[in-house]
Amino acid sequence: MPPDHLSTTFAALADPTRRAILARLASGEKSVNELAEPFEMSLPAVSKHLKVLESAGLIARGREAQWRPCRLEAGPLKDISNWVERYRRYWEQSFDRLDDYLREIQAKEKKGKSHGGKKK
Amino acid sequence: MPPDHLSTTFAALADPTRRAILARLASGEKSVNELAEPFEMSLPAVSKHLKVLESAGLIARGREAQWRPCRLEAGPLKDISNWVERYRRYWEQSFDRLDDYLREIQAKEKKGKSHGGKKK
Repeated sequence: MPPDHLSTTFAALADPTRRAILARLASGEKSVNELAEPFEMSLPAVSKHLKVLESAGLIARGREAQWRPCRLEAGPLKDISNWVERYRRYWEQSFDRLDDYLREIQAKEKKGKSHGGKKK
Repeated sequence: MPPDHLSTTFAALADPTRRAILARLASGEKSVNELAEPFEMSLPAVSKHLKVLESAGLIARGREAQWRPCRLEAGPLKDISNWVERYRRYWEQSFDRLDDYLREIQAKEKKGKSHGGKKK
């Protein structure tokens, strides 16, 4: 069974170097040499990461003979965003619960001060 | 070098069965047996997926002796959402460009109709 599109995208993003490459491409097209610079990595190693990103459709590469620039392709990122968005209410709920809890503690503290604050 | 938190989460999500397990947990806590039902999968296979999700902090398991229910933990999903959100303008830009292009075509078609519509 070939991996589905979302799984391929998630797998491509499961690596800090590949995410750093995308972050660098966010500021514009770059050649493989330019991309390799900050990583202290061999060109073949960087090329391997670029191939994974390209297979996932996260980058596209120009066809200009010499420097085939890489550019960000945001479509698969939109799919990730749509997928994760359906869970938003779960993390917002848990922060709501934390909020409720903190408010409860603050209310108790205030009550404690106004009732018993002069006993000390 | 241990994998970073985001990479572990992305890797855990790079599997359709694990994403389906999360989707099922979105409706509430479930036992391993309940989770295994729709997947036609052995319990050990499901357990393996649950371990990956648990290591990534995407689920938590109750400590009740018998049926240790699994529940969704949305924190890591929030981190994914925050990470992908910074690229929103890129996919919105590409849709804007498509919008511009479609508007341009429609304008040209209208112009064509009003100028040359009667020639046929």
